[in-house]
Amino acid sequence: MTAPIARTALRVDGVRLLDVLARLAEIGADPAGGVSRLGLSAEENEGRAFLRELARDAGLVTETDAAGNLFVRRPGGRPEAPVLLMGSHLDSVRQGGRLDGAYGVVAAVEVLRVFASATPWLELPYEPVVVAFANEEGALVQYPFWGSRALSGQLADGLSARDRAGRSVRAYLLAAGGDPERLDAAAWAPGRIGAFLELHIEQGPVLERRGVQIGVVDGIVGRTIFDAEVAGQVQHAGTTPMPDRRDALAAAADVVLGVRRIAATERLCSTATVGYLDVSPNVTNTVPGTVRLSAEVRDTDPERIARAEAAVREVCAEVEKTTGCRVTVTVAARSRPVSTDPLLRRAIAEAAEELGLTRLTMPSGAGHDAQMVAEIAPVGMIFVPSRDGISHAPAEDTAPEALVCGADVLLQAALRVQELVTAVEFGPAAFGPAELDPTELDPARTGRHPTTTDDGGGR
Amino acid sequence: MTAPIARTALRVDGVRLLDVLARLAEIGADPAGGVSRLGLSAEENEGRAFLRELARDAGLVTETDAAGNLFVRRPGGRPEAPVLLMGSHLDSVRQGGRLDGAYGVVAAVEVLRVFASATPWLELPYEPVVVAFANEEGALVQYPFWGSRALSGQLADGLSARDRAGRSVRAYLLAAGGDPERLDAAAWAPGRIGAFLELHIEQGPVLERRGVQIGVVDGIVGRTIFDAEVAGQVQHAGTTPMPDRRDALAAAADVVLGVRRIAATERLCSTATVGYLDVSPNVTNTVPGTVRLSAEVRDTDPERIARAEAAVREVCAEVEKTTGCRVTVTVAARSRPVSTDPLLRRAIAEAAEELGLTRLTMPSGAGHDAQMVAEIAPVGMIFVPSRDGISHAPAEDTAPEALVCGADVLLQAALRVQELVTAVEFGPAAFGPAELDPTELDPARTGRHPTTTDDGGGR
Repeated sequence: MTAPIARTALRVDGVRLLDVLARLAEIGADPAGGVSRLGLSAEENEGRAFLRELARDAGLVTETDAAGNLFVRRPGGRPEAPVLLMGSHLDSVRQGGRLDGAYGVVAAVEVLRVFASATPWLELPYEPVVVAFANEEGALVQYPFWGSRALSGQLADGLSARDRAGRSVRAYLLAAGGDPERLDAAAWAPGRIGAFLELHIEQGPVLERRGVQIGVVDGIVGRTIFDAEVAGQVQHAGTTPMPDRRDALAAAADVVLGVRRIAATERLCSTATVGYLDVSPNVTNTVPGTVRLSAEVRDTDPERIARAEAAVREVCAEVEKTTGCRVTVTVAARSRPVSTDPLLRRAIAEAAEELGLTRLTMPSGAGHDAQMVAEIAPVGMIFVPSRDGISHAPAEDTAPEALVCGADVLLQAALRVQELVTAVEFGPAAFGPAELDPTELDPARTGRHPTTTDDGGGR
Repeated sequence: MTAPIARTALRVDGVRLLDVLARLAEIGADPAGGVSRLGLSAEENEGRAFLRELARDAGLVTETDAAGNLFVRRPGGRPEAPVLLMGSHLDSVRQGGRLDGAYGVVAAVEVLRVFASATPWLELPYEPVVVAFANEEGALVQYPFWGSRALSGQLADGLSARDRAGRSVRAYLLAAGGDPERLDAAAWAPGRIGAFLELHIEQGPVLERRGVQIGVVDGIVGRTIFDAEVAGQVQHAGTTPMPDRRDALAAAADVVLGVRRIAATERLCSTATVGYLDVSPNVTNTVPGTVRLSAEVRDTDPERIARAEAAVREVCAEVEKTTGCRVTVTVAARSRPVSTDPLLRRAIAEAAEELGLTRLTMPSGAGHDAQMVAEIAPVGMIFVPSRDGISHAPAEDTAPEALVCGADVLLQAALRVQELVTAVEFGPAAFGPAELDPTELDPARTGRHPTTTDDGGGR
């Protein structure tokens, strides 16, 4: 059997990729703008049905697991081979964009189609499988990373998940083709997945501002979310002299600015944000009595997160001392930072190099399914620029050519994974930021540079 | 006819006063706590019906005007005499206290009953009339000072008033016994009212903290309310580096603290408050894009209010400059400060003196019906202490003996008004704070000290 084309010359079908993306964007298109294809909703189910049909028409086979995750494979396949998993999620936030998640799934399917077409001559040391994770956002059923948690065995309390109206996940799951009685069966054994590659829009402004085409993600930030309550005294805004006040909103303003300073000025962590703040009684002529707020800090380094956490508590203690308001602060949620696999980072960097694309090693400030999969497999992530850094909004966008380039990087990175699955023993990624050392790309230094014997074509 | 008692020895019936207050508090008692007797609601109507019955049983006559204000008079009465109006309002905020407004009405009725009992021998140079103003709070039909605006001819656009559901004031007014077609008829000609006395709880902590029994109000603060919108950029809290943010909440926090400083530190006005603040989209992992807030400044001096207004605008301009967020600020409402009449202040101070009560000259930080009536008549206000300074809340309270003392001060102050109505030409009170000069009480200096020829009893 002769190869009709060099491995490094393999490319996705850009027109087909963009066409599938456009058709998928119709599913859950919100009359008020953007896409509302909430996880485990009828729209996400429709999205899965669309992908199943697309896959079947392309001669691929599909399977839905007990958690509602959809898998796409080549027919036949080799059960003994480790799996190279590629994909992301199909669901969106309410009035979100058409690319967040969907792009990574559609591009992975496109890469699989290219691989399937080349199957007669393309030898891969793994079985390529596409996954469309269910309910990454948790916008309807309040359990984000639902599908990737299921796959990585982190959904022990999954059946406690509910929507905002208190309805259990069970009915949703049945409608999605899942099986609430067999959720455990969705978990893959560690080692079964040789590597996971997730292509995603950056959802931030960094690549665009720097004019860089590809982001090589070195780590996904961990995050600690605090709930804080500032308790002052409801007082009449006209009759209460200023020194007699315990103004919960003025105290909360100190907290907001103090939290911001932790990242902006003191640089203890990469981001620190108060995104939610609720005032009570919230009446013009009344000194606010209570403010509830959520603060979050993020970083790729767990030690820096720990320092930032301590700083949040110090800010609250200081505000309590200076304002006379009581400030109680509790950790509402904590997620660990995750490092991507150095070899997968290198594969991505080399793919970009091969394609003549500029690249930047950068952390992911957003959480992704890869964060969950990292519990059981090495993960790699590829970013493409987001226009104006906007995401989770109808204006979310990426230039068509950038979308095609990103898919080509996924394809070429996947091809470069050939040696990895045998060369290293995979396990959960280690903690801590792992900068992509420029010298890492020097084969002479690392001794691990994938051989590119296929450049010439004949194999 | 002989006087059975000296004028200065006249006292209210404290037990009767407290009993009526307790019975009135049942009307609109909220199962969730406090009193919800909203202006122009069925509960306020019930409150008026209660007062009408009470008045009739006491041999007094009642009348409801086109705006829903209830008046109580002695039978007969002298149409040619100027009126000494006493009273306050019957309505409350939602889950408000039982005393705000109601106390001033019930005490005025009690004083009128004493006057009516003494009518055979008590000569008054005016006709005492009690008013229960409708809808002072504006908690249901969104038009505060409804009744006192009607009486003072400041209700030209009154029929545009609506409740939060958009229902017109008309049906409410008809149910309250008013007449939407004849609202103008509720206005009294300037000069007809010789003086207006309003007894009220302080609604603030000043009297209680200083251990003073009676507040002699020298002015009612004016107030300017601003609506401000802080427009930043909705961004992902994880993917947007700190320097790339336009965080509307962080900018709004600067506004909150800047507004507070105007009064608390720079002392440009007596109070400055942000009581209302609304964050959008208000999601933990999103940098806030828009914050809407209301800021208000108050003072009894119009020049200080003007300076404080300018300071609010400077704060907003400075925040816009330093944060990159757009801050638009507009005046939503403005009320002028009002000075009480110096002679009425003196009458109140002397009444307290007569009764052996400590007193403090102080401004009213809250708005009151007297503020409206001041457009057409001299006004005087008496405060009694509020427990913990709390008002507009179920915990609003004043000690029973303090309530009785306040009513006695109203009675004795009313008796001291005898010469005023002929001695001075009344008009709208002048602007500016008028401190009660201690020497003002020296008859030798002012030459206006009311003669107290009735101490001895015989007249």
